[in-house]
Amino acid sequence: MGQTMNLRRELAPVDPAAVEALVRATGVFSAAEVAVARELVEERMARGVASGYEFLFVEDEQGLLGYACWGPIPCTEKSFDLYWIAVRPEQQGGGVGRRILRAAEEEIARAGGARIYVETSTRAAYDPTRAFYERCGYARAATFDDFYAEGDGKAVYLKVVG
Amino acid sequence: MGQTMNLRRELAPVDPAAVEALVRATGVFSAAEVAVARELVEERMARGVASGYEFLFVEDEQGLLGYACWGPIPCTEKSFDLYWIAVRPEQQGGGVGRRILRAAEEEIARAGGARIYVETSTRAAYDPTRAFYERCGYARAATFDDFYAEGDGKAVYLKVVG
Repeated sequence: MGQTMNLRRELAPVDPAAVEALVRATGVFSAAEVAVARELVEERMARGVASGYEFLFVEDEQGLLGYACWGPIPCTEKSFDLYWIAVRPEQQGGGVGRRILRAAEEEIARAGGARIYVETSTRAAYDPTRAFYERCGYARAATFDDFYAEGDGKAVYLKVVG
Repeated sequence: MGQTMNLRRELAPVDPAAVEALVRATGVFSAAEVAVARELVEERMARGVASGYEFLFVEDEQGLLGYACWGPIPCTEKSFDLYWIAVRPEQQGGGVGRRILRAAEEEIARAGGARIYVETSTRAAYDPTRAFYERCGYARAATFDDFYAEGDGKAVYLKVVG
């Protein structure tokens, strides 16, 4: 890849705006989803670890390249949700997403996690997203038809780690 | 049933403590789950409708008989989660739960909801709970093995309403 990338776990003041811009730039998330992505960053900054949200940022000289957000699922022993993973559009397909996901999985395993769940849409626009998870070792665990809207179902993927 | 029951949607100052006591008395929820049940009540009192939590309480002269808590699932058009439904142990089997659930379903349909999801455990202790949902028209939509803990899976039920 030849690029200098920096992985960062701690949050910086620029992150709410940078995450919002990055998630919007991917073009696959609704305005409501973009707002949620930003809110989780703000929630983490306001409440720290108690927020239940963990982050990993990858950046180069240009700024944020991609990030992931995950957390333990309350009232479970070892299950985690991967809430967000996004990569700057012009960097997609170059292995950044896979690198972020692998780093997140290592953090989850280190925190005692054994099962990682990811939810995504069954719509055609998300074919690359679902293919990405499958390449990374995630298997479809459930499908909920019409979950997001009529004709827009939810697919749940699972990877057992640690 | 011959009992005088009052259905109430607005929250009262006694509710956090009453809900905690009722949920604990059922004997099927962990200490962490009991804490979550109370927190949702407090969240609603602090943030109102913006909390995303709606409640229905049923009470008699003795106090709280049962309650339900639900809310719209963010970033979906018509999907709702039923987060909690609980009935005082000595009142179970008398139709109180079914009455609360039906009233909650009516409120959800009135709010534009079309799909109601409920999550529960696959453990034997929850056989009566799952049988209750099935009697009330809910169908198993997914099963996640070992979700809560080793040997303790999550069952997701769905009812289409409205």
